[in-house]
Amino acid sequence: MEYLNLISGVTMIKTIYFEDNKVKYIDQTLLPSTYKVVSCSDVRELEIAIKTLAIRGAPAIGVAGAYGIVLAALSYNGDDKEEFFKVIKDGEKIKNARPTAVNLMWAVDRMMNVFSRIKNQSIDEIKKELFLEAERIRKEDAEINRKMGQHGHPLISTGDGVLTHCNAGALATSEYGTALGVIRAAVEAGKKIRVFSDETRPLLQGARLTTWELNQDRIPVTLICDNMAGISMRRGLIQKVIVGADRIAMNGDTANKIGTYQVAVLAKENNVPFYVAAPISTFDPKARTGDDIPIEERNKDEVTHIQGIRIATEGIDVFNPAFDVTPAKYISGIITEKGVLKPPYDKSIKELFS
Amino acid sequence: MEYLNLISGVTMIKTIYFEDNKVKYIDQTLLPSTYKVVSCSDVRELEIAIKTLAIRGAPAIGVAGAYGIVLAALSYNGDDKEEFFKVIKDGEKIKNARPTAVNLMWAVDRMMNVFSRIKNQSIDEIKKELFLEAERIRKEDAEINRKMGQHGHPLISTGDGVLTHCNAGALATSEYGTALGVIRAAVEAGKKIRVFSDETRPLLQGARLTTWELNQDRIPVTLICDNMAGISMRRGLIQKVIVGADRIAMNGDTANKIGTYQVAVLAKENNVPFYVAAPISTFDPKARTGDDIPIEERNKDEVTHIQGIRIATEGIDVFNPAFDVTPAKYISGIITEKGVLKPPYDKSIKELFS
Repeated sequence: MEYLNLISGVTMIKTIYFEDNKVKYIDQTLLPSTYKVVSCSDVRELEIAIKTLAIRGAPAIGVAGAYGIVLAALSYNGDDKEEFFKVIKDGEKIKNARPTAVNLMWAVDRMMNVFSRIKNQSIDEIKKELFLEAERIRKEDAEINRKMGQHGHPLISTGDGVLTHCNAGALATSEYGTALGVIRAAVEAGKKIRVFSDETRPLLQGARLTTWELNQDRIPVTLICDNMAGISMRRGLIQKVIVGADRIAMNGDTANKIGTYQVAVLAKENNVPFYVAAPISTFDPKARTGDDIPIEERNKDEVTHIQGIRIATEGIDVFNPAFDVTPAKYISGIITEKGVLKPPYDKSIKELFS
Repeated sequence: MEYLNLISGVTMIKTIYFEDNKVKYIDQTLLPSTYKVVSCSDVRELEIAIKTLAIRGAPAIGVAGAYGIVLAALSYNGDDKEEFFKVIKDGEKIKNARPTAVNLMWAVDRMMNVFSRIKNQSIDEIKKELFLEAERIRKEDAEINRKMGQHGHPLISTGDGVLTHCNAGALATSEYGTALGVIRAAVEAGKKIRVFSDETRPLLQGARLTTWELNQDRIPVTLICDNMAGISMRRGLIQKVIVGADRIAMNGDTANKIGTYQVAVLAKENNVPFYVAAPISTFDPKARTGDDIPIEERNKDEVTHIQGIRIATEGIDVFNPAFDVTPAKYISGIITEKGVLKPPYDKSIKELFS
């Protein structure tokens, strides 16, 4: 398939990139049945793509947010700087497309900092610098993921069953992945492992995306429902858990896709190490603990319907939080591009930031 | 609706009964979108209904097994007793339709014991006695459920959020339910509660059946995905957990629908009492611990497809256990028709059986 460049046995899925003055992204709502790259030249359309999870995953929506500022800048063709600034400020609203993943705010803030610094330059110069900064964010993300893989893969051994939740893979980043990046690095290092993928209701990112990614790379994967993680651990099928993160507080409390907390509790109960893989941009210096992390609640149709088909009784109440917080005490290590953080996290995270 | 007889505010769902020489049952694969009562006069068809989960729930498939022997007996119209006995022995195979719920074996064995005792009577007499025994099993089940409700409802208080998993309701029994029977009894006693229903992948008995049942009775119910039980407990939404059981070992280890173990671990971690409601016929005197309980594994299509629509990548491996075992140490009490058993269960269960 033309979109897959085999590099040392591991395919290259390019989730989001810039080409011909447009953002190109894989529409993740259509996978695994349809692989489609969408071209987008409007920041509001990109915002909708984030809201509808066509682009999802904390690092990937960070990259999307950065590109959103570029699209806003490129959309202005006049020479009135005040008007131009208003267009960019308006584009900045993409930052609020989703509330939990801090990478989105982080990336947009980074773009706006560059913008503030170069405000005095010409409109063309500003456009160019914003584009270069967004490209840096995307490329850095890819490099960071490979570094996380190098730091993280020694935690995985041949023969391991590795459970992951949701999709913290190439599709959640610019490429390679965070949690799945660590798994890819283990495979590239010659380790024989099997991945267990929680299907991850309601939107089935595990069933749809993680199995698709790993299947592309021919990494053995077993799909389970979210309520089968426990029996899989009790049966000795799981030796490690690795998940991604949407936001990490300064004490190590970690927000990630709904259900992650449960997996962490089960891992502790079954003496299975539980690792989080996330770039430093996922840490929120303003969040002291998990209580400071806003948890998005989404539409009840996500729970009552699957692919447009009603599966539940009409008229009932639904609780649909998109994320939960895993307290630091359940986390055996946090894999970053600078190394693996160990508890106590308030200390190790402080060191990381100093 | 004609099938609902309101009795003191609680509807009467009749899951399975005998009428006009036929077994009538609600086809549970069609709920909640379609309510259909199927007539069945052939034991092999009834066996398929159990295998395909058109009839499901440990007590309900016990009743179905008993009626299966009646259908086998009624299917013979000759006067050769040897031939008649062969037909009944052949009908006995319904016992193996599913392996985990012990009620099925228990009910069929009870029927076969009656059969052994009255073998010398006329064919017509035997048919009549088998029918009467099956009717007793069904009626006893309904009475037992109400007794469980009376013993169990003092455990529930006004204001409680009560989490349940799968469907241990009227639809899992002849009527009223085990876990949902306790909930119904609490509501009939005037307690104001809210039920949280795990959707219970893969076959969504929580989303499809539990919400339907409770909605009929106007008992407030909130649907969650299986991976949201943890956050619901952490947020203080859940004060009690009540589930049913498919088989209980003599040390209290309890097999129930896949995912029950996880709920029990989360309940313990969050200091939420975790109760099992089950009739004495669910205890297996031959199972010393949960290790002695066979766990059914079902087709991978149940996980990769929802209502016939593929949701996962093709060609991947799937692990699909239909049940798991919750070790006794996580169980705060087992509600039976004789009272609430408390730990240590090896002692309290031994007392129950002596």
